[in-house]
Amino acid sequence: MCQLMGMNNAAPTDFTFSFKGFCQRGGATDIHSHGFGLCVYEGRGIRSFLDTLPASKSPLAQVIQNYPIRTHNMIAHVRYATTGAVSLENVHPFSRELWGIHWSFAHNGQVPKFDDSTPLEAQPLLGKTTLEELHYNPVGETDSEAVFCAILNALKAEFTSLPTLPVLHGFLSKLCKEIILGDEDSTIFNFLLGCGKYTQFAFSWPGRRPGSKVWNGLYYIVRSPPFQTASLVDADYSIDFAKFAKSNDRVAVITTKPLTDETGWTEFERGQLIMFDKGLPHRSPRCCEQVEKEGRGLSSKCFERLRTSSISSATMPISESSTCCSEEEEVVVVTIPPEVPPQSALFPTAAE
Amino acid sequence: MCQLMGMNNAAPTDFTFSFKGFCQRGGATDIHSHGFGLCVYEGRGIRSFLDTLPASKSPLAQVIQNYPIRTHNMIAHVRYATTGAVSLENVHPFSRELWGIHWSFAHNGQVPKFDDSTPLEAQPLLGKTTLEELHYNPVGETDSEAVFCAILNALKAEFTSLPTLPVLHGFLSKLCKEIILGDEDSTIFNFLLGCGKYTQFAFSWPGRRPGSKVWNGLYYIVRSPPFQTASLVDADYSIDFAKFAKSNDRVAVITTKPLTDETGWTEFERGQLIMFDKGLPHRSPRCCEQVEKEGRGLSSKCFERLRTSSISSATMPISESSTCCSEEEEVVVVTIPPEVPPQSALFPTAAE
Repeated sequence: MCQLMGMNNAAPTDFTFSFKGFCQRGGATDIHSHGFGLCVYEGRGIRSFLDTLPASKSPLAQVIQNYPIRTHNMIAHVRYATTGAVSLENVHPFSRELWGIHWSFAHNGQVPKFDDSTPLEAQPLLGKTTLEELHYNPVGETDSEAVFCAILNALKAEFTSLPTLPVLHGFLSKLCKEIILGDEDSTIFNFLLGCGKYTQFAFSWPGRRPGSKVWNGLYYIVRSPPFQTASLVDADYSIDFAKFAKSNDRVAVITTKPLTDETGWTEFERGQLIMFDKGLPHRSPRCCEQVEKEGRGLSSKCFERLRTSSISSATMPISESSTCCSEEEEVVVVTIPPEVPPQSALFPTAAE
Repeated sequence: MCQLMGMNNAAPTDFTFSFKGFCQRGGATDIHSHGFGLCVYEGRGIRSFLDTLPASKSPLAQVIQNYPIRTHNMIAHVRYATTGAVSLENVHPFSRELWGIHWSFAHNGQVPKFDDSTPLEAQPLLGKTTLEELHYNPVGETDSEAVFCAILNALKAEFTSLPTLPVLHGFLSKLCKEIILGDEDSTIFNFLLGCGKYTQFAFSWPGRRPGSKVWNGLYYIVRSPPFQTASLVDADYSIDFAKFAKSNDRVAVITTKPLTDETGWTEFERGQLIMFDKGLPHRSPRCCEQVEKEGRGLSSKCFERLRTSSISSATMPISESSTCCSEEEEVVVVTIPPEVPPQSALFPTAAE
């Protein structure tokens, strides 16, 4: 399996501290030594760094740990290869352009429907996707890249104008259910999905591989004033955020296992999809409305061109008043991964 | 304007020597200080490095100059912004996935039909592209990214199975003519197009911007045994290739201006499209046949899936005997860029 790390920030922030700890899991404190990668959004652009070397040993990872790139939104991945060879085309995050927006995707888990034992031509088409509308195709052999392409194909087939964040949240939730349906016990599906400068979705369908003691889930923490000191659990390294952070900073870190000794790490519920913006979690379509209203939804320049052809609007009416779930945020102390077996009903514990 | 550098190699080779000289043009020996980027193919995968800092000053460029990544195929770019702001989304090379293959594109020039003064919705659709089949969309503001997307949209609209290299050569030539037609005097269109592990196309429609003395063309050199010493023209640095290269090595370097003091740099003819494979130039569709026969054409795993829907074959019958133009290769000494004004007829001097 692999490990994920995402950061989503109210103000452009560098990720060297978290990435330093995360890299240790790539071959030093953990076994994920089959490559690493990260995608960093800067404006409308994206930078990706990919390597087949272990993150703990790669000269490239070393540079990134000391090169303070500041961003609102980034995702990273260290790989332990279970599906697909150790090769550059199988290194996460994967990225594609859709609607003039760079999308990026990193995955931890196993998705039987998209496993490489299922030939590409036998893999399911999600949503309204048809063979004639297949645009995104995997380059490598991983189930992760195949499922990412299937999600993008479904988005492209569904929308002929830019979806709002509430609409996107609802539709992604539906796709996740479709991907897991019928394989609830054998699927582990934790992902980070970057959708441009501000927006990151994270989804968790956690689990253990048969015979393994390793729990693959997803946790997040929100750091905001008053900032405190944090120590990495994977390296002898601490930082006092109060010395560096400004009063308007707020940072969400999302990861497979908590990276620091801080209280406040929250485990995702089974089947939970969270949209992160400005370092805040938004757990339902309704909760995304305010962000859309603030003009921080998806941003694309390409739909003007398509207006000349027949399109339908995919915007959702936004309610006049709504309470964002982030305002009800409460700190949850890190818990040991639960020992309960996977539940068979889909998404029974979702907070909404 | 910008500068381009490509390398195409018979055996995986690192590009640190050429890249070291090339980086100097990014703000030291030349003015192209608005970012740099490169795409490196490794197997079916691609690595891209992008930065908005000048190549001569970027810590990232410094790392790459000293990190011997070995590849069959790479393209690089240093930018002098004429269209579009200095921002990451406008840094070349651009890359997109088509048919499960990573394509990458770097451009030097100006393409009036795709200039940002022409709104996206008024820009032409190439080949058989229709508004309903618009798949690739620019993220940034450059004419370069817009024309790259237009080329990929046209490829996607034209082919429903994987084109052979001769077919691709013929079709790209046709698209280049379409892009330039009617704007022969105001267009400067030099590009490198990476199409996977082995294949790189390079095209030149050279010229000078009004009021400028700078000639924007494209040159290439093929280094093969017996190897000799070369000195960079942009840095006080020499290398004796005979000490490092093996007997089966062969390297083509393609660049806006010769990078070294070697004899053997050849300027592209006006309107010439060359496909590079194994470090050899292939100047016509016929000339690409042998490469296709050797199994070094485009490689994709996604068409099996489409066989279930109705498709037509885009393969071209390959003649039984053909002489590759590379076998007629002759060394041409670097010449001072010609002072003749641009010719108005399309591609009058193409060698085929």
